[in-house]
Amino acid sequence: MVIFVLTKNKTTMVNHVKLKQYITTLFERMGCSTTDAESVAELLVAAELRGIPSHGVMRVKDYYQMVAANRINTKPTVKVVHETPSTATVDGDNALGPIVGKFSMKLAIEKAKVAGTGWVATRNSNHYGIAGYYSMMALEHDMIGISMTNANPLVVPTFSTSKFLGTNPIAIAIPTEKHPPFVADFATAPIARGKLALMAKKGQKAPIGLVQDENGHPTNDPDTLVHGGGILTLGGDVEHGGHKGYCLTSIVDIFSSVLGGANFGPFVPPQVPYLPIPDKKVGDGLGHFFGAIRIDAFRPAKEFKLIMDKWIETFRNASSIEGQPNVMIPGDPERKNEEKFSKEGISIIPQVLTDLNEVAQKLGVEPLNQ
Amino acid sequence: MVIFVLTKNKTTMVNHVKLKQYITTLFERMGCSTTDAESVAELLVAAELRGIPSHGVMRVKDYYQMVAANRINTKPTVKVVHETPSTATVDGDNALGPIVGKFSMKLAIEKAKVAGTGWVATRNSNHYGIAGYYSMMALEHDMIGISMTNANPLVVPTFSTSKFLGTNPIAIAIPTEKHPPFVADFATAPIARGKLALMAKKGQKAPIGLVQDENGHPTNDPDTLVHGGGILTLGGDVEHGGHKGYCLTSIVDIFSSVLGGANFGPFVPPQVPYLPIPDKKVGDGLGHFFGAIRIDAFRPAKEFKLIMDKWIETFRNASSIEGQPNVMIPGDPERKNEEKFSKEGISIIPQVLTDLNEVAQKLGVEPLNQ
Repeated sequence: MVIFVLTKNKTTMVNHVKLKQYITTLFERMGCSTTDAESVAELLVAAELRGIPSHGVMRVKDYYQMVAANRINTKPTVKVVHETPSTATVDGDNALGPIVGKFSMKLAIEKAKVAGTGWVATRNSNHYGIAGYYSMMALEHDMIGISMTNANPLVVPTFSTSKFLGTNPIAIAIPTEKHPPFVADFATAPIARGKLALMAKKGQKAPIGLVQDENGHPTNDPDTLVHGGGILTLGGDVEHGGHKGYCLTSIVDIFSSVLGGANFGPFVPPQVPYLPIPDKKVGDGLGHFFGAIRIDAFRPAKEFKLIMDKWIETFRNASSIEGQPNVMIPGDPERKNEEKFSKEGISIIPQVLTDLNEVAQKLGVEPLNQ
Repeated sequence: MVIFVLTKNKTTMVNHVKLKQYITTLFERMGCSTTDAESVAELLVAAELRGIPSHGVMRVKDYYQMVAANRINTKPTVKVVHETPSTATVDGDNALGPIVGKFSMKLAIEKAKVAGTGWVATRNSNHYGIAGYYSMMALEHDMIGISMTNANPLVVPTFSTSKFLGTNPIAIAIPTEKHPPFVADFATAPIARGKLALMAKKGQKAPIGLVQDENGHPTNDPDTLVHGGGILTLGGDVEHGGHKGYCLTSIVDIFSSVLGGANFGPFVPPQVPYLPIPDKKVGDGLGHFFGAIRIDAFRPAKEFKLIMDKWIETFRNASSIEGQPNVMIPGDPERKNEEKFSKEGISIIPQVLTDLNEVAQKLGVEPLNQ
């Protein structure tokens, strides 16, 4: 098996197992235990495999700089601070998000084994990578998995110019019998900052209905965030149901913060080293919320999974529109990416490779492409 | 207190307490027990009070005709068919939805008292009125309430012309200390059939991004549902995040149907007597899903509610956009309606009054406006 090959398109292709080992080494050198470093590497590589590089290894530099600035704790004691048969509150001790996320989701699954469902509200955490990873941890236990997080404020409530909400993703994974599982993993805002930045780089305009300018007026400027504008909620304006998106994003914010004691909305601490920590805090760190629902707490798992297969077959056979793709089942695109990138390797663009190797050098680790 | 007054605008103003008594009598005459009839009346009048007349007393005629056609059971034995400490599955015995809904939500609350959270999947039910009512039942117990339901298919999955999903609402009610509670109650589609019908009646066009024609192309025809078109998911097309709305509506469908054993998506039985029951069934009746989360299963309730007050104050003070309303907190508009209509009475339009009195006559009850 070839491990690292420099190929076409100026990107570096890296085998995902080796990439995970390499990232693990970097986080060990930052002071993490092997288990913790593996959790972080696991989440970053999972994002790459599933085709979400914005939550992949490009985050290593941010994480490293946050650690170097003592804004993230690499020797955490993540602990349960409150619990009932079906719930727990977890304090992440300001650890790297993936460590706290895996701890919390495992706990939700353990609770569900006994009480039918398990729900964990987590505070004092940081950026936890792709929401979908945690929800999918439930699948092998014949459970539905749920994961959500708040995030840095970029999104405006309906009728406002105040960026008070994050793009706050929700992920829900549902087990099936013979088909691949249903895995919905989506930001509750219509577009992410990264995609807007890419449009700007390409000289494209943003479609109307995604963002507004500093006065709250519709704009097609993909750079509007830089000029005081904001991302609209899912739906866009009120005429198109944007107030429903505002409800949804707010719910993710409240479940992820107020329930467990993390900072809400505008007070979520930045996850990049070049932005200062807000003066005011209303909780501890960034927050998440996790759920695990044992299928057989409602009906026999096999019966449920066979009906989920029918659901999937029904929707896969929905009539398609001429010139458009066939109907997809949530999770299809990410699964196809995972199959492809597991075989072909993960492509790392030059800028990310340079960043990674800079971090490696500071930590006394050999560069990735040698 | 004046009870029934015929006033301006050709509408009949009715005191809500008396309206509830009147509706209770109608459902008693249909064969319901007094308690069951009161549950139905409670839900229909709550919808009127909160300014959602599409789920109010205009449904009496549909409900009556469904009962008269033996498509709804007025002597049900609603029962728990499976349970764990934090979950239950309820069979509604094909009762009127509000009876099944109140039974299920009460059970979720009882479960939460013991296990921290309570979750109920309900099958074999019918149209249950406003989702928000059930979620608000949790508030007095210092719990978060959750309620969702599937509904008749009018909504198309992304890339499809097949109307396979309902407008599937979600309601989440969150307790507060001094401010009114946060109550989000929203259909997961950007527009309801009723609003489209109203646009058509007024000769208005629908904004682009809400509906599509029979070929799956964008249209502004508010009558498109009649011509084979469909309602888009929240977000609209893929460029505007409509696939995220598809995920959301699908999740509500699966939680409301596959978990408890009700019919999913295209197989949800119609809730009006003039549409036939589908040939194929994949479960029993229409389904709902309910949740109750005890706040002090995560942190002291008082502490949580004080932070929720802060959340609300923060968002109420968000900068507003010139010429637009101030930022609202989910639940504001419905609460204002409730305050107003509790005092001023509920206005019933002539067509609904005629329908009500026709039903009353058939049941041997005096008409409403005498």
